[in-house]
Amino acid sequence: MSIQVSVIGDASAEPGLAETAYEVGRRAAEHGWVVITGGLGGAMEAASRGAKEAGGTTVGILPTYDAPTANEYVDVIIPTGLGHARNALVVAAAAGVIAVGGRYGTLSEIALALKLGKPVVGINTWPGIEGVWPAPDAKRAINKLASLLE
Amino acid sequence: MSIQVSVIGDASAEPGLAETAYEVGRRAAEHGWVVITGGLGGAMEAASRGAKEAGGTTVGILPTYDAPTANEYVDVIIPTGLGHARNALVVAAAAGVIAVGGRYGTLSEIALALKLGKPVVGINTWPGIEGVWPAPDAKRAINKLASLLE
Amino acid sequence: MSIQVSVIGDASAEPGLAETAYEVGRRAAEHGWVVITGGLGGAMEAASRGAKEAGGTTVGILPTYDAPTANEYVDVIIPTGLGHARNALVVAAAAGVIAVGGRYGTLSEIALALKLGKPVVGINTWPGIEGVWPAPDAKRAINKLASLLE
Amino acid sequence: MSIQVSVIGDASAEPGLAETAYEVGRRAAEHGWVVITGGLGGAMEAASRGAKEAGGTTVGILPTYDAPTANEYVDVIIPTGLGHARNALVVAAAAGVIAVGGRYGTLSEIALALKLGKPVVGINTWPGIEGVWPAPDAKRAINKLASLLE
Repeated sequence: MSIQVSVIGDASAEPGLAETAYEVGRRAAEHGWVVITGGLGGAMEAASRGAKEAGGTTVGILPTYDAPTANEYVDVIIPTGLGHARNALVVAAAAGVIAVGGRYGTLSEIALALKLGKPVVGINTWPGIEGVWPAPDAKRAINKLASLLE
Repeated sequence: MSIQVSVIGDASAEPGLAETAYEVGRRAAEHGWVVITGGLGGAMEAASRGAKEAGGTTVGILPTYDAPTANEYVDVIIPTGLGHARNALVVAAAAGVIAVGGRYGTLSEIALALKLGKPVVGINTWPGIEGVWPAPDAKRAINKLASLLE
Repeated sequence: MSIQVSVIGDASAEPGLAETAYEVGRRAAEHGWVVITGGLGGAMEAASRGAKEAGGTTVGILPTYDAPTANEYVDVIIPTGLGHARNALVVAAAAGVIAVGGRYGTLSEIALALKLGKPVVGINTWPGIEGVWPAPDAKRAINKLASLLE
Repeated sequence: MSIQVSVIGDASAEPGLAETAYEVGRRAAEHGWVVITGGLGGAMEAASRGAKEAGGTTVGILPTYDAPTANEYVDVIIPTGLGHARNALVVAAAAGVIAVGGRYGTLSEIALALKLGKPVVGINTWPGIEGVWPAPDAKRAINKLASLLE
C-alpha cells in the first residue's frame, strides 16, 4: 500500500489557488503518494489532474451517490451518500493533509484532520489555527509534509 | 415539533466554560428549545444538565454505539457509531448553534454548521471565523440566537 | 433515560401494515418506551402517530438534511444527511426493534440490528432470517419484545 | 475510470467460500474491474488477493479509522470510522455486487445494494431475496454480472 495524502480546497477555487492545487497534486504523485480529494471541481479537480499528469493514482470521496459528478481525473470513485459527513472520510483516509485555500468545508476538514492527529500543511488557507503548518507554495508544502510523514 | 438548538463545546471544558454551557442549556430550555449536544462530558454534560434543570428535553448524539457513555442528563440518546462524522449530525439537527469554548471537534462543528447555513453564536470560542456571531455570555448568546431564529 | 425501541417498515406500507405499525407504536408508548423510526411516511408515520396518541415521545432519524420531510408525529427530528447509511443509526439507537412488513430498506435494518446484537421481532416481514422472532400481531410483538428487554 | 464492483462476504468465511471469493476477485480483475471490499479478512481478503494476483486494483472500505487492519492485498484504504454504516458505502461504490456466503453484515449489504438499484449476484448466500441473481460458482457469477453491467 502506498502513502495516501488528501488535498483539500474549495469546489470553486479561484484560478491562482487551482493552479497551486494542481501543483500540489503533481508533486504528491511524484512522491509516489496516492492523492485523495473530495472528488468534485475546483481545487479538488486541479489536484486530481496534477496527480494524473504525473502518473499518479487518484481517489475521489464524493458527498453523494452520484459517481458521474466526480471530476474526470479521479481513478477510484467513492460515492458515499453521506453529505457533509463525508468530509471526515476525506481526511481519515490520509496520512497527511494539504489545504489549499478553502471555505467552510475545508475548515471542517482541517479541524477533523487535526482532531484525528493527522499533520496538516496549509497554503493560503484559514489563518490562526494552531497545529496547521503554513507553507508559501506547493513545493514547500509537499516538502514539509514529506518531512512530517517520513 | 419544538425548535432544536445545539450547544457545542469540549468534553474536557474547564470549569468556567462548563458553567457558561450550563447557563446556555438552562436558558435554551426556558425558551422551549430542545437542547442537542454530542452527549458526552464537559460542556456537553453541562448544557444538558442546565436544560434538564429548567425542565427541558435533551438529545445526545454520540460518536460510538455505546449508549451508556451518554451523560446522565440526556433524554434521547442517538448512538451513531459514526466516529467524528457524527459532528455533522450534531449541527444538522439544529436550527441554530451555540459554541462555548471548544477545540478541534468544536471547530469542525462550527464549520459544518456554517456550511449548512445555520446561524452560529460563539462564546469564548475560535476567533476570526467569518459568520460566527460573538457573544460575551450565555444570556446574550441566547438572545442573539433567538433573534436569528424567530 | 427511557428505553428506546425502533419500529421499522416501508414508507409506502399498505393500509393493513400501517394499521399494525400504528398499533405497535401505541403499545410501545404505553410501555413507556421512546419510539424511534426513520421519520418518513407509511409505517414510520403510522408508528409515530400511534405513539403520540398514547402520549409517548417519538424520534425520527431522516436520511436527508430536510427536517420538514419528517412526518407530523415526530417530536425530535434527526436529519442526518447520511442517505441509506442512516439505516444503521435507526437500529443502533434502539434497545430492540420491531419490523412491520418492509422492503429492502427494512431488510437492511433487520440485518444491521442483528449484527449489532439487538433483539428483532417481525410482523409479516422478511421470512427465513435466523434471529428474527416472528409475531402474528402488534400485541404479541410488543409482549415478545418486552420479555426480551426486561 | 474503470468499472468498480464490490465483493461482499464474511470476515470469517470458511475455506470453501474463501476459495470462491478468491476466484471472484481474480476473474473480476481479469475483466478490468476495480475490486472493492470491506477491506478486512475472510472473503474480503480472499477476493482482494485474487484481484491482486490477476494484476488488478483493490479498494478496502474499513469500518474503523485503523488503516493497518486492512488486509495486505488492498491498494487503496478508506478507513471510514463509520462502524456498520460503512456497509452502505461498500455497495454504493460499486456498479454491481457479488455476494459470496455471508452473515448479517453481508445481508445488510445485499439489501442496501438492491435499495440503491445495483445488480446483485449471489453465490451460496442468503436465499429467497427477490432481486438477487443466484450463481453456482465464480465463473458464472462474473459472467452474469458482466452481462448485467455491459
